[in-house]
Amino acid sequence: MEITPIAYFKSPFPDKFGIPRQAGLVEGLRGRIVFVPGFKSADAIRGLDGFEYIWLIWGFSANTASTDKTAFQATVRPPRLGGNERVGVFASRSPFRPNGLGLSSVKVVSIDYDGPSIEVDGADLMDGTPIYDIKPYVEYTDSHQGVRSGFVDSHRWESLEVVFPEDASSSGIDLKVLADVLSLDPRPKYQDDPLKVYGMTFGGHEIRFKVSGKVLTVLEIVPH
Amino acid sequence: MEITPIAYFKSPFPDKFGIPRQAGLVEGLRGRIVFVPGFKSADAIRGLDGFEYIWLIWGFSANTASTDKTAFQATVRPPRLGGNERVGVFASRSPFRPNGLGLSSVKVVSIDYDGPSIEVDGADLMDGTPIYDIKPYVEYTDSHQGVRSGFVDSHRWESLEVVFPEDASSSGIDLKVLADVLSLDPRPKYQDDPLKVYGMTFGGHEIRFKVSGKVLTVLEIVPH
Repeated sequence: MEITPIAYFKSPFPDKFGIPRQAGLVEGLRGRIVFVPGFKSADAIRGLDGFEYIWLIWGFSANTASTDKTAFQATVRPPRLGGNERVGVFASRSPFRPNGLGLSSVKVVSIDYDGPSIEVDGADLMDGTPIYDIKPYVEYTDSHQGVRSGFVDSHRWESLEVVFPEDASSSGIDLKVLADVLSLDPRPKYQDDPLKVYGMTFGGHEIRFKVSGKVLTVLEIVPH
Repeated sequence: MEITPIAYFKSPFPDKFGIPRQAGLVEGLRGRIVFVPGFKSADAIRGLDGFEYIWLIWGFSANTASTDKTAFQATVRPPRLGGNERVGVFASRSPFRPNGLGLSSVKVVSIDYDGPSIEVDGADLMDGTPIYDIKPYVEYTDSHQGVRSGFVDSHRWESLEVVFPEDASSSGIDLKVLADVLSLDPRPKYQDDPLKVYGMTFGGHEIRFKVSGKVLTVLEIVPH
């Protein structure tokens, strides 16, 4: 089946590195859904303001592996399991999956019916991500409480303490949001080198940092 | 983007009429996810038994309108609103939508690693529905409680009382499940003719019924 984007996502993350690994992890992380020509219709989102959350079905556009149908990888190594234990791809939310479809529930912040566009909170989508469908989040059919969530339950994510340089606030970046993003530990899970300097692009800036133990130290924030 | 089915759904519903309008409405309504050649891999579902629910991203295969990209319908008329009020397609879960993708969370009943196949409960999928992705339901990112759900909140569904003929149990059909399916009122919402006899195919049987007021009377259950 051929599917075509109805919208694209505008995000402070121009590439994959640093994006939260699931939706809803960082409150205040704003992004915008911008409809493509042919789907720019205020009518098509009429009534959406009654819903607090929406579903996005989107494409893992940055993963070339996921679009290569000849190379079906049955298992993946979730970062939550340390990056070396394998689980089935259909038992994970890994981007490296057949058909390369992502699924995220995000909070509606505001709706611009003139654009039209939708501002949302908590998305785990890269800038430019194609969106194939938007559905309202309906609690009675979508929300299950107290359910077993496999290895996600048994392997909690340890967050990092984030230390900024003194002049960080002069960058104009929302440091609360950036701290929450960094506290999730963007490093590949098999890496633990306190001397290595990482670079993450966020909100038009290059964030350079290193991690020692459970402390992430931001070295500098420079315009990108 | 081209997507291809990884599995098909086996359901007691060979056609659309009578299928619950969302997932999870009828407990005990069993179905089976059967993988297609190329994705028949026990490895690909390894670890899934730790999850209580899974997401299915599937295709509204029975809706020819949804696959006709030239005919974008910006609004739809949800049955819950009586079938005559319009809302935006992206503010509804209507099958008549761009890209024709469905989204359902279903309960895992059992996993057959040899098939492989997955038995699930509560699906709103027709027999033969193509499935494009399976993801584990992860509570911390997927479950939102006490959130506004637009017109779904303000327009409750009234269920019907279901009356069976005396010999109904001889059909071998699970009457508890069938009663729950029928209580959801499968009629098109703009129809209210107590004389009209409806036919629904379920579990290899033709269920003939009529509806008067809030009472649905099953007239006969015959092998299909």
